[in-house]
Amino acid sequence: MSATTTEAHPDLIAQARAIVDNVRSGSRVALGRAITLIESNAAKHAPLAEEVIRQALPYAGHSIRVGITGVPGAGKSTFIEAFGTMLCREGKRVAVLAVDPSSTVTHGSVLGDKTRMEMLCREENCFIRPSPSSGTLGGVTRKSRETIILCEAAGYPIILVETVGVGQSETAVRSMVDFFLVLLIAGAGDELQGIKKGIIELADTILITKADGENKPRTDMTRAEFERVLHYLSSPTPGWRPEVLTCSSLEGIGIREVWDVIGRFCEYTQKSGFFTDNRRQQTLDWIEDMLSQQLWDDFIRNEGVREHWPQVEQAVLTGQLSATAAWKQLFNAYTNTHD
Amino acid sequence: MSATTTEAHPDLIAQARAIVDNVRSGSRVALGRAITLIESNAAKHAPLAEEVIRQALPYAGHSIRVGITGVPGAGKSTFIEAFGTMLCREGKRVAVLAVDPSSTVTHGSVLGDKTRMEMLCREENCFIRPSPSSGTLGGVTRKSRETIILCEAAGYPIILVETVGVGQSETAVRSMVDFFLVLLIAGAGDELQGIKKGIIELADTILITKADGENKPRTDMTRAEFERVLHYLSSPTPGWRPEVLTCSSLEGIGIREVWDVIGRFCEYTQKSGFFTDNRRQQTLDWIEDMLSQQLWDDFIRNEGVREHWPQVEQAVLTGQLSATAAWKQLFNAYTNTHD
Repeated sequence: MSATTTEAHPDLIAQARAIVDNVRSGSRVALGRAITLIESNAAKHAPLAEEVIRQALPYAGHSIRVGITGVPGAGKSTFIEAFGTMLCREGKRVAVLAVDPSSTVTHGSVLGDKTRMEMLCREENCFIRPSPSSGTLGGVTRKSRETIILCEAAGYPIILVETVGVGQSETAVRSMVDFFLVLLIAGAGDELQGIKKGIIELADTILITKADGENKPRTDMTRAEFERVLHYLSSPTPGWRPEVLTCSSLEGIGIREVWDVIGRFCEYTQKSGFFTDNRRQQTLDWIEDMLSQQLWDDFIRNEGVREHWPQVEQAVLTGQLSATAAWKQLFNAYTNTHD
Repeated sequence: MSATTTEAHPDLIAQARAIVDNVRSGSRVALGRAITLIESNAAKHAPLAEEVIRQALPYAGHSIRVGITGVPGAGKSTFIEAFGTMLCREGKRVAVLAVDPSSTVTHGSVLGDKTRMEMLCREENCFIRPSPSSGTLGGVTRKSRETIILCEAAGYPIILVETVGVGQSETAVRSMVDFFLVLLIAGAGDELQGIKKGIIELADTILITKADGENKPRTDMTRAEFERVLHYLSSPTPGWRPEVLTCSSLEGIGIREVWDVIGRFCEYTQKSGFFTDNRRQQTLDWIEDMLSQQLWDDFIRNEGVREHWPQVEQAVLTGQLSATAAWKQLFNAYTNTHD
């Protein structure tokens, strides 16, 4: 077995080449179809999907990947609409992907609320992809990473990956993007209770939304508060000091500043070498994560483990068995059944 | 194989019983020796060590386990000296354990600095155990957890587990204690840059030390700052709002308040059921961690995996191989060599 040669059939290679060529031609329809292929859970689609990704890889990587998160109500879809439209009208091509089913990109269509991202949808330079409709978070993560690769091969230099800041998905998204933007709503503080533990520390920039009208003074106060908070937290990106910005998506204020900060971020991290190092490390971490997950799945599906687990757990919880003795018994059960 | 029966030899059982009886008699020498046994890395000691833990388990659990962390210079040893001495003089028995080699409990003796915890060392009610001198963090964690069990079986109702707040160990300690105390030094903020990412969110209480003399106004300011910071972070203990306290270990001010807050915490979490639920969950998580670690260790030690990993990694980093294809190749290499 060689690690670098593919074992794909010549027909499959040709079929994949046609798909990748179409994607690279800039056809949004072709891109959409290619994503549907790699999102498929059907086993028969897997070899072609893998071959497509393999052939797309050499054309991927030339983009800025921006993760965007925020609690429901933080105005994610309104911001993405304003931000994406601004970029598209400047001639930049933007791909918008949603990671979890409850993200707004899908949310809109589920509710039949056609006004969400209505402007952005009409931009020629924009490609919008709702979240994969099924699968575990691990599966969704794999699909999102490979969707990013396809969008890059299709020539989108700006990839916005949207996620809802209430689950586990923001950590997953953080691990697949270069820049992570956390949207918060202004307020006296109590509105912010929904922010998930640790999410602020994932942010390269915090954006306080809805800085318009009567809300403006509160937004400024919240901004000052968060600048203080960030002072006590370390940055996810070495040497980069996370900024706190405010914006009004409705009035179009502060939107350009978000693009400016992303520019400064790219310049800084490309100069420091972190940009490239981080992408390499993200890829290697991802492989390790997939392997760990597979090992664990094999373990908990194992017959011997499933048989012994309940009684071992019970024995531990009633104090009859130590944790160390417990894992050894379970591991032996696995090894014995495995061979 | 039954999950609950021990396979230990009658001689071993008798030997372990003698050790556990001695530990339970209150002899600090016997407790120290039993800990040395379970800390041993020698394979020949493992069966006896496991049997000792098994027999100690029914007597364990009746304590409050307090994790204490803080950057070097935050005054951990001075605080533990003042806090522990106060408790001992009220007739409470206190065990002090250090998790990492750089913790102050060991630090003092390494430097030959006999003044560290000099008072506390002389208290009859106190048992002080330096950190295990060797082993991976995983190994140290196992030993620390089992040391807690032995101290509880020896009748110590208060276990202080000290760790340095700069490594990975504070997360490990957080997962083995009921209450987690983070010590910080007062200041304009720049002194606090050493605080590890996420550590503040592990805290059930933050204690600003050195609130004496000229430092007092800065301490009060820092306290107010952290009360604001905590407002935006979620608590590690559901329903419990982390408090920010100040103390002067030298002047003995604010020390009793730490014990009071631990009392309120216990009352609250025992009433809510979290105290017991959390301990159960900690034990189950620990078993899963040990299993995951073992599975991963087996995997990366595997001959096929070791042989293929470098070229697979290279192929991924040069864009010739997708991450998904990579993990499949590595997993196949494992499965083929494993059988």
